[in-house]
Amino acid sequence: MSLIAELEALLGKAHVLTGTDTAGYATDWTGKYAATPLAVLRPADRDQVSAILRLANATHTPVVPVAGRTGLAGGALADGALMLSVERLNTIQDINPAARTATVGAGVILSRLHDAAADHGLTFPMTFGARDSAMIGGLLATNAGGSNVLRYGNTRALCLGLEVVLADGRVMDAMGALHKDNTGYDLRDLMIGSEGTLGIITAAVLKLVPLPRAHATAMVALPDLGAALDLLNLLQQATGGAVEAFEYMPDTYMRRLATCRPDLRPPFEQTYPVAVMVEIGATAPRDAEPGPDGRLPLVALLEETLAAQMEAGTVLDAVIAQSQAQRAEMWLRRELAAEITFSRQPAVDNDIALPLDRVGTFLDRMETRLPQIDAGAETITVGHLGDGNLHYVVWPTRGDEAMKETIRTAVEDEVATLGGSFSAEHGIGVSKLSTMARRKDAVALDVMRAIKSALDPNAILNPGKVLPPNA
Amino acid sequence: MSLIAELEALLGKAHVLTGTDTAGYATDWTGKYAATPLAVLRPADRDQVSAILRLANATHTPVVPVAGRTGLAGGALADGALMLSVERLNTIQDINPAARTATVGAGVILSRLHDAAADHGLTFPMTFGARDSAMIGGLLATNAGGSNVLRYGNTRALCLGLEVVLADGRVMDAMGALHKDNTGYDLRDLMIGSEGTLGIITAAVLKLVPLPRAHATAMVALPDLGAALDLLNLLQQATGGAVEAFEYMPDTYMRRLATCRPDLRPPFEQTYPVAVMVEIGATAPRDAEPGPDGRLPLVALLEETLAAQMEAGTVLDAVIAQSQAQRAEMWLRRELAAEITFSRQPAVDNDIALPLDRVGTFLDRMETRLPQIDAGAETITVGHLGDGNLHYVVWPTRGDEAMKETIRTAVEDEVATLGGSFSAEHGIGVSKLSTMARRKDAVALDVMRAIKSALDPNAILNPGKVLPPNA
Repeated sequence: MSLIAELEALLGKAHVLTGTDTAGYATDWTGKYAATPLAVLRPADRDQVSAILRLANATHTPVVPVAGRTGLAGGALADGALMLSVERLNTIQDINPAARTATVGAGVILSRLHDAAADHGLTFPMTFGARDSAMIGGLLATNAGGSNVLRYGNTRALCLGLEVVLADGRVMDAMGALHKDNTGYDLRDLMIGSEGTLGIITAAVLKLVPLPRAHATAMVALPDLGAALDLLNLLQQATGGAVEAFEYMPDTYMRRLATCRPDLRPPFEQTYPVAVMVEIGATAPRDAEPGPDGRLPLVALLEETLAAQMEAGTVLDAVIAQSQAQRAEMWLRRELAAEITFSRQPAVDNDIALPLDRVGTFLDRMETRLPQIDAGAETITVGHLGDGNLHYVVWPTRGDEAMKETIRTAVEDEVATLGGSFSAEHGIGVSKLSTMARRKDAVALDVMRAIKSALDPNAILNPGKVLPPNA
Repeated sequence: MSLIAELEALLGKAHVLTGTDTAGYATDWTGKYAATPLAVLRPADRDQVSAILRLANATHTPVVPVAGRTGLAGGALADGALMLSVERLNTIQDINPAARTATVGAGVILSRLHDAAADHGLTFPMTFGARDSAMIGGLLATNAGGSNVLRYGNTRALCLGLEVVLADGRVMDAMGALHKDNTGYDLRDLMIGSEGTLGIITAAVLKLVPLPRAHATAMVALPDLGAALDLLNLLQQATGGAVEAFEYMPDTYMRRLATCRPDLRPPFEQTYPVAVMVEIGATAPRDAEPGPDGRLPLVALLEETLAAQMEAGTVLDAVIAQSQAQRAEMWLRRELAAEITFSRQPAVDNDIALPLDRVGTFLDRMETRLPQIDAGAETITVGHLGDGNLHYVVWPTRGDEAMKETIRTAVEDEVATLGGSFSAEHGIGVSKLSTMARRKDAVALDVMRAIKSALDPNAILNPGKVLPPNA
């Protein structure tokens, strides 16, 4: 029996797509990564995932696990491989309000989990623009970040337990709902962020947190990035760490946004080189009840802090959202980022992290360096400033690979010199393989390769991703 | 040249202890684990650690890394092995108040880091009774927990970067100070908690947080554990997650404490089957300034919450610390736990974690089951209730190994049935090897063994710890 026939016997014909039926899966959201899978498989449950992997491992057939395919690094590219979609593992098995946990399948869409948790006054506090299509399995495989990492951490910090199918089809049960568990090596965090190269995550136990009862949200223009970091520390201290988002939206971004979406009203009369959107979340009831002056305590606190900083000249301008509609408008401007930054080609997109106090230095250095490489290049920057995470995109005047590579290398140089990371939250996929080979600590790369060989000796799991070929 | 002579040439004679000179290192704090090391090595820096491992790996000589030797699982036992003490890697290289990080050597004592951070209004928010001798390297190797995990997480959550010397002496540089870094597998969290079996941690970048400006601390007696969990959730909600400690100190513990330390005044007139010490930390200035009635806002909030619960019958009694001295007294009672629970032998100590809502079920079941095993057995329980972490110690009437094993197995049974962990924060060391063999998911154990073999093929790093021998 052919492999495809065996798979059809296993999953049913309807869930083994081949030929033109795979067209809907050939491209990911970016449109940059397109390939023809050998077949698209849609297993119904963990046991089917396990059976697929047993078969693939025995026949040395590559398997690329995919979820919402909204990643930006090409991790879901499946040229000639079996594309294993977890979309049908979409059960929310349990929401436990007392223990504040959710037990979910890998195919659950992020916004569906938000809705289910909200019914209990709780939330899974990870969010980003693609929340209506991104799935939990993809979040876990890429250790997704987003806009609330500042307060709640990334995916790793929000996951308590995992179920993982290994390359040979064996199931590793680490589905604990425990806040402490020191029984050997941290295999959970090893699997999270491994982009499907060490195992396929089929289910997880996730942490939930109280849904904030109210928000204080503002756009703030500042004289420089130092003033922005000072404002962040000031607000963190004043609120006891309740700042949920601190998003960098400078003039390069706001101008491009105005071009792409002229329907959206800009927050200020002018654009500013340094501007942030800040949001504070009120979880305590005392912060969600209006004070004698009718203002929420956290809104009052934000207003007073910003007023004092304007007085001192360390804030140039500020607008506080006065309604849910105004808050939603501020967030819409931010969440169009992926769409905006991918709206023009050729582009060199860099998802970088820097120590918080070095973000300004990086931007200053690039402002000098980039014109020396391409005098006409434009840049657009947006990002999670509270985490030191910039999405720094360069639009060169020429789109040839040599030019792109020169720009990429220049960015990497500055990032490395400043102790930063060349991939903050998007991962490696195929997009950062050459950077990984050049920049990652060589010993760490060796350790990763040793682990990969130990856990996937036939190299069937998402081959060609994350780990660059040995030099 | 003999191995010892080579090591002496490397480190200097004064830092290679042999024979009776090793006596001070033969026993750990518990006194349960005693053995004679081949030699005790005190390298001065990372390069010396690297050189030792190159030599050990070439000669297949076992190496046991140790720090403060205050672990409770026998991880530092070094029978016939080279004991590598990181005590001289004791430099606090940097405290960065803007980025809120500390860069430290593995030999820095925890309380020294507390003091250094406090000079900047910051703290490394991990604490436990042994803080004056425990070292950062040991905290990292064991993924230490303690009393503030509830608010700040365990060691993994508080570490940004690591420097690790691998089995063959190569140095893995992962000393980033970044809040986001998705460049491949999570080797940092793999090394943390691996108890020196995958590499030797020589330095780390740690997170600092604002030192709380004030505390609200109370002892509270409750009718049952359900009421305790309700109180925890109520206080977390009211304070926006500022509960730092929620420590279980029931009658079994308080009575034994009174026997061992009659000088300490008990908190209540009587003992209660369910009692907790709760502490809320005020980091926001608005919470650290007394209100119109002279009370700190968080103290007022705690008083009012407890008064309302007493009215409702869901709190039986409560005492709020009225001064720093009273707060220190409450903490002293709690932090004597290790001393108290190790004060009597024979003992079967269990460091277990349970889902928060199942702690009471576990204790109820053991109350039925234990007398069937040993009618005269006594128990003493203390723990971090907010994390579902109990230190459940049984004092049987007979100290033979068969009796201990029967009790251990009974505890494990109930823990497993309730979805708990048989080692919450103390780790495996040698003390939990048989449990690890019996209870850990077999696939997860295989994965751990595969990783161990891949990274330490000659099995020189802390052999015989964490991983039970293959059946």
